[in-house]
Amino acid sequence: MKILSVVLSRTITLLLLLVLLGACATTRPEPATDPLPSWNAGDAKQSILAFVDNVTDRSGTDFIAAEDRIAVFDNDGTLWSEKPTYFQLLFILDRIRALSADHPEWRSQQPFQALLENDMAALAATGEHGLVELAGAAQAGMTSEEYEGIVSAWIESARHPVSGKPYTSMVFQPMLELLDLLRDKGFSVWIVSGGGIDFMRPWTEGTYGIPPQNVIGSSQELRYERRDSGPVLVREPRIHFINDKSGKPIGIQRFIGRRPVIAVGNSDGDYEMLDWTTSGEGPRLGLIVHHTDGEREWAYDRDSSEGRLDRALDDAPSHGWTVIDMARDWRMVFPPAN
Amino acid sequence: MKILSVVLSRTITLLLLLVLLGACATTRPEPATDPLPSWNAGDAKQSILAFVDNVTDRSGTDFIAAEDRIAVFDNDGTLWSEKPTYFQLLFILDRIRALSADHPEWRSQQPFQALLENDMAALAATGEHGLVELAGAAQAGMTSEEYEGIVSAWIESARHPVSGKPYTSMVFQPMLELLDLLRDKGFSVWIVSGGGIDFMRPWTEGTYGIPPQNVIGSSQELRYERRDSGPVLVREPRIHFINDKSGKPIGIQRFIGRRPVIAVGNSDGDYEMLDWTTSGEGPRLGLIVHHTDGEREWAYDRDSSEGRLDRALDDAPSHGWTVIDMARDWRMVFPPAN
Repeated sequence: MKILSVVLSRTITLLLLLVLLGACATTRPEPATDPLPSWNAGDAKQSILAFVDNVTDRSGTDFIAAEDRIAVFDNDGTLWSEKPTYFQLLFILDRIRALSADHPEWRSQQPFQALLENDMAALAATGEHGLVELAGAAQAGMTSEEYEGIVSAWIESARHPVSGKPYTSMVFQPMLELLDLLRDKGFSVWIVSGGGIDFMRPWTEGTYGIPPQNVIGSSQELRYERRDSGPVLVREPRIHFINDKSGKPIGIQRFIGRRPVIAVGNSDGDYEMLDWTTSGEGPRLGLIVHHTDGEREWAYDRDSSEGRLDRALDDAPSHGWTVIDMARDWRMVFPPAN
Repeated sequence: MKILSVVLSRTITLLLLLVLLGACATTRPEPATDPLPSWNAGDAKQSILAFVDNVTDRSGTDFIAAEDRIAVFDNDGTLWSEKPTYFQLLFILDRIRALSADHPEWRSQQPFQALLENDMAALAATGEHGLVELAGAAQAGMTSEEYEGIVSAWIESARHPVSGKPYTSMVFQPMLELLDLLRDKGFSVWIVSGGGIDFMRPWTEGTYGIPPQNVIGSSQELRYERRDSGPVLVREPRIHFINDKSGKPIGIQRFIGRRPVIAVGNSDGDYEMLDWTTSGEGPRLGLIVHHTDGEREWAYDRDSSEGRLDRALDDAPSHGWTVIDMARDWRMVFPPAN
């Protein structure tokens, strides 16, 4: 009986030890696997990993409470490509073409005529006014729910004019990994884009894991209307808010109400968002995607019409913003084909 | 040895049973305690509990996925009192009085003179224009961060003119319980108020557990300004958006991007939010707080200047909205004094 009791006691001790070891395993500080496998070793990767470790270390002086772990991301050129032009503009052009059968008058009316004849010089000549008219014709007049259906159908079926791939395949794999890392570390992740808020929302959750309520963007006026079938929100052709440049900090204040601690952008349109974020007290991280990879994606900065990066590139060193060199820092640009 | 082995085997079986019972206990459908202890038994309490059980029952046909469990609450008169007038207006009046020492010209200038002389008839005579001027003087010109500090200091120190209590003590205990119940059941809970978004955000998390990014309200224009000390957002005296009446569904679409399944209000200003919410497909819950309790709170509806409840009360039965009779349905109105 004595021996049995000793054996039993040892077995229980062993079991207890195993249980305790199991519990400890879940609190080990460092994951064995690389959370950013598509990033090459270098300053950019290092600054991200060091920042995240630093601000989530409860015993450190730079610890940031979970509710203040707010990270904001530009979309066009930061989370997905923006060439040959903003994808939302390609959506607008596709939609005008699709609607043109019901609008014979467009065949002799600018800016529609230029678009339908693929006369890009004439289209460009209609300027911003022409673009606003196209955007209004493509994106106003329907209800918010109808528009959501139109965007969802387009994002599902449309193909990029250069790559031939679905637009949602042209997101940046390294950014998907960064979004996952931040969420794993308790950050709330937001899109803060000059693009249309309701153009992004139908697909950001499936593509980035970012739900509609975490998407901030430019918006059109909405009109509430009580129909026999029930209330609807009708999209008006007037702009409500342009969430670009100094509009980005304003959009952030309005939607989030707290200053972010991480901002990620790729153009001068993100300058104020980066400045607003990194000027706050305590540890802050500003990241700029520099499109340097003409082979795997596109190479552009100071002279580009979309995603022009000039002043923000000049001021990055003095502001402590980390510039991501796409060609050098990213092992892979787009996700592997499914 | 045989006997011991049997005893051991029985002990292990018993332990296993206890473990299994423990596991089962966590999935029992009904909590032993009442989640709404401040609500008297009745139609209102019953309709809330039945709705929540119904839409969170994974095996039922009315199951609502977690991301669609969105509940929107009006604030003034729904989550806290709104008498003798909206608390934000009392804040504005307090602030004008505090600023008047630096503005001797206000002593002979309406609407300031009327306010400083406590001449409420003269103040009322200045109408909406007077109110807008007071609001601008009290709430514009400072940075967003300065305003947050001003509101925080006021909410901490100010006392209600009738009860003598802090304003945050004049929240409704039954509503705090409802917010907790919904969060426990996986709902995201939002404030959708005609009040100022930046007036509410400094205290909604501490008072209701609702973080700044889940607060939707009326807003003033903001101006981004780069100062030597860093960028600031300056509050402009112009209105950006009025989040009331048909503005509420528009604010919901803009901030949340999904239609809620629960809406709670107390006035005709919530009509469109209730209608928008309960007109959606599938199970929906519309709740109206009817202020019937002149003894414990205030009794008012059709003839009130704040929180006028007339059309929404008439249409509640045909729309299936549940009317909460404060005197009858609430066992307790305000939280017990600390």
